Amino acid sequence: MAWTNILTDLLKVNYPIIQAPMLGVSTPEMAAAVSNEGGLGSLPVGGLSPDATKQLIRTTKSLTNKPFAVNLFAHNIPSYSEDDLEPMRKLLLQLAAKRGYDLNAADLSNFKLYNYLDQIDILIEEKIPVVSFTFGCLDPDSIEALKRNACTLIGTATCVEEALYLQQQDIDIIAVQGIEAGGHRGTFIEDMPLPQIGLFSLLPQIKKAVRIPCVAAGGINSARTMKAAVELGADGVQIGTAFIGTEESQAIPSYKTRLNNAKDTDTALTKAFSGRWARGIRNEMMNEIEQAGIPIPPYPLQNSLTAQFRKLAQQNNDIEYTTLWAGQSAVRTTLTQSKDIIRNLIEGYEAL
Amino acid sequence: MAWTNILTDLLKVNYPIIQAPMLGVSTPEMAAAVSNEGGLGSLPVGGLSPDATKQLIRTTKSLTNKPFAVNLFAHNIPSYSEDDLEPMRKLLLQLAAKRGYDLNAADLSNFKLYNYLDQIDILIEEKIPVVSFTFGCLDPDSIEALKRNACTLIGTATCVEEALYLQQQDIDIIAVQGIEAGGHRGTFIEDMPLPQIGLFSLLPQIKKAVRIPCVAAGGINSARTMKAAVELGADGVQIGTAFIGTEESQAIPSYKTRLNNAKDTDTALTKAFSGRWARGIRNEMMNEIEQAGIPIPPYPLQNSLTAQFRKLAQQNNDIEYTTLWAGQSAVRTTLTQSKDIIRNLIEGYEAL
Repeated sequence: MAWTNILTDLLKVNYPIIQAPMLGVSTPEMAAAVSNEGGLGSLPVGGLSPDATKQLIRTTKSLTNKPFAVNLFAHNIPSYSEDDLEPMRKLLLQLAAKRGYDLNAADLSNFKLYNYLDQIDILIEEKIPVVSFTFGCLDPDSIEALKRNACTLIGTATCVEEALYLQQQDIDIIAVQGIEAGGHRGTFIEDMPLPQIGLFSLLPQIKKAVRIPCVAAGGINSARTMKAAVELGADGVQIGTAFIGTEESQAIPSYKTRLNNAKDTDTALTKAFSGRWARGIRNEMMNEIEQAGIPIPPYPLQNSLTAQFRKLAQQNNDIEYTTLWAGQSAVRTTLTQSKDIIRNLIEGYEAL
Repeated sequence: MAWTNILTDLLKVNYPIIQAPMLGVSTPEMAAAVSNEGGLGSLPVGGLSPDATKQLIRTTKSLTNKPFAVNLFAHNIPSYSEDDLEPMRKLLLQLAAKRGYDLNAADLSNFKLYNYLDQIDILIEEKIPVVSFTFGCLDPDSIEALKRNACTLIGTATCVEEALYLQQQDIDIIAVQGIEAGGHRGTFIEDMPLPQIGLFSLLPQIKKAVRIPCVAAGGINSARTMKAAVELGADGVQIGTAFIGTEESQAIPSYKTRLNNAKDTDTALTKAFSGRWARGIRNEMMNEIEQAGIPIPPYPLQNSLTAQFRKLAQQNNDIEYTTLWAGQSAVRTTLTQSKDIIRNLIEGYEAL
C-alpha cells in the first residue's frame, strides 16, 4: 500500500487508515486524534437526534481541521405494535431487578426513533467531506445531494452482492467487513442467511467484482495485518477494536480491562443487544436474552429497549449488562492514545 | 515465504504447499501429482479399514517416490444405542424414497466403525514420513511410536487453545484452520461453542502463541493469498477447494460444475452429513436434515447412516444428496490437473 493512492486522494488524508466508527465507544476526541495524525477519523452518529448529530460534529471540528468521516445507519424503521415488545420488556425488567438496577417500565417505551434522513441536511450544512454508512444503502436522493456537495461516500458490504449493489448506487468506496470484525454486521441483503465470510475469502472476491476502492475491515491491528490486507487487494484498512482501550474511548474501565484479557474464542455474534447481528465478548446479558426463548424485536427496537439498562450498567462499571463489542483480534496493548495507534501502524508498516 | 524454510526441511519437500486431505475427493493420483511437483500431497484415510488404508498407501507409492502425508481422524467413537439412531434412519429412508433411491434399512445398520488406532501399525510398517490428523490429537503412545519411526506430525487447530495443546503433546506442525476452510472443522475442544475464527484473526494469534511451524488453511487459492498468509505468519499453506475440480479428484461431474459456479455466500456449516460441523455448498440433503427437527447423531454415526444414500446420489451425479464440501473461496478455474495448480501457484508467487 503506497501511502498515496486512490483512497488517500479520495479521502484527502495522508494515510489510507480509517478509524472505525464505533457508536458508544468512538468520540469526537478519537476521530480528531486520528485525523490530526493523517488518518481518517470517524464520528458515529447512527440513530442519534439531529441536535446531537450537529453538536458532535461541531465538537469534532473544534478539535481538528483535517477531514473526518461521519457514519450513518442506513436502516429502515420497522412497523411494530406495543404488544410485540411486551415479552422483551418483561424480561428486561426481571433481569434488571435481579441485577439490582432501578429500571422502570417508562424507560422501555415512548422512545423516539430517528433514521438517517433526519441527519442528511446537517451533514450538507456542515460540509462533511466523507460520509460512511452501514446496515444498508442511502436512498438515491440523499446520495445525489451529498455527492453534489462534494461528499465522498463509503458503504459497507459483507458479501459480493452487497458490494455490487453499492457500486451500482454510485457509492465511491466499499468497506469490506470480514466476519472477524467487532460490533454490528453491515449486512443488508436480507433474503438469505447472514453472510459469515472471513476477510481472507471476502476481500479478494469483492476486489475482483468491483472497480471502486476497497477498505479491509475486521482483524486488522498491526503493520503485518495491514500488509496482508494489501496483498488481498485492499486499498486501505479500517481499524476498530484497537481503539477501544484508548483514553479517547467512551468504553468503561472494566470493558477496557476485559478486552485486554480477551481470548480468540471469547466473542460471539448476537442479536441480543440491538436486534441486529453484532460481534462482542460473551457476557451475562447476551446469554440471558438469547436463552430466554422469546423473540428479539428487530433493530432499532431492541436497541432502544435495552438502552437504559445498558446505561445503568455502564454507570456501575458493570461489564455483564452492557455491550462489549470486539473483533476476533483483540490483543493486549499498552498503547492508550489514538494518535499512538496510528503512528505505531505507520512506523511498523514502513519498517516491514 | 522462502521456498526453503523450516517447513520444507521438516517435510522434505521443495515447496511449503500442502494439498489438503479431502476424504471422498482426494485420491492417490492427486497426492502423487502434488508430491511429484514438489509440494506435499495428502492421502486421507480417516475412518477407513486397515486393508483399505494399506491399499491406498501402496497405490500412492506406486505413483510417486516423493514424501506424502497420510491423514487420520483422531476422534473417539461415542457409545450409542440402536434406538438413538431410529429417528434419523426413518428420515433418511423417507428422503431416499422421495428422491427415488432404493435405500434399505439394512444399509443403515451394522456398520463397522474404525478409528485411527486400527491404522497406526500400517503407517509405521509403510514408513509414512508425514502423518496429519484432525478432530483431536493422537494418543501419547501413537505419537511416540510414530515419532520413533521418523514420522513428522501435523495437527489441526481452530483456536489458540487447541494449538497450544497440540504443541504440548509434541506435535511438530500446526495446521491453522480458518473459518473459511471447506469440509470438516478440526475443532476438538468441546466444552465451548464452536470456534468460528477467520484466518485473518486466527493465524497471527496462533503463530504468536506457539514456537512450532504453522500452516495456513482456509481461503488460500492463489499466489496473493499465499503471500498474505505469509505476512500473517504462515510457514506454509494448505490448499483444498482448488483441487476439487481436477482430473485426479473423485468429485462427481455435477459437483465440479456447481463449484465452478459458486458464490461467496453459497456455503454453510452443517452437521447434517456426518454429525460433525463441516462447510459445504448448501443443498437439499443439508436443508432437509437440518429442518427435520430430529437430533443428528454424533460423528461418525451420522456419517455412516448417510453413507449409502450419498453413494447412490453420487452414482446418479445428483448434487442434492451428497456432500458438496467447499471453502468460502471457491473460484472459477480452467486448471484441471493437480500439478498445474501447484505449478501455477509457484510461478505466480515467484512473479509477485
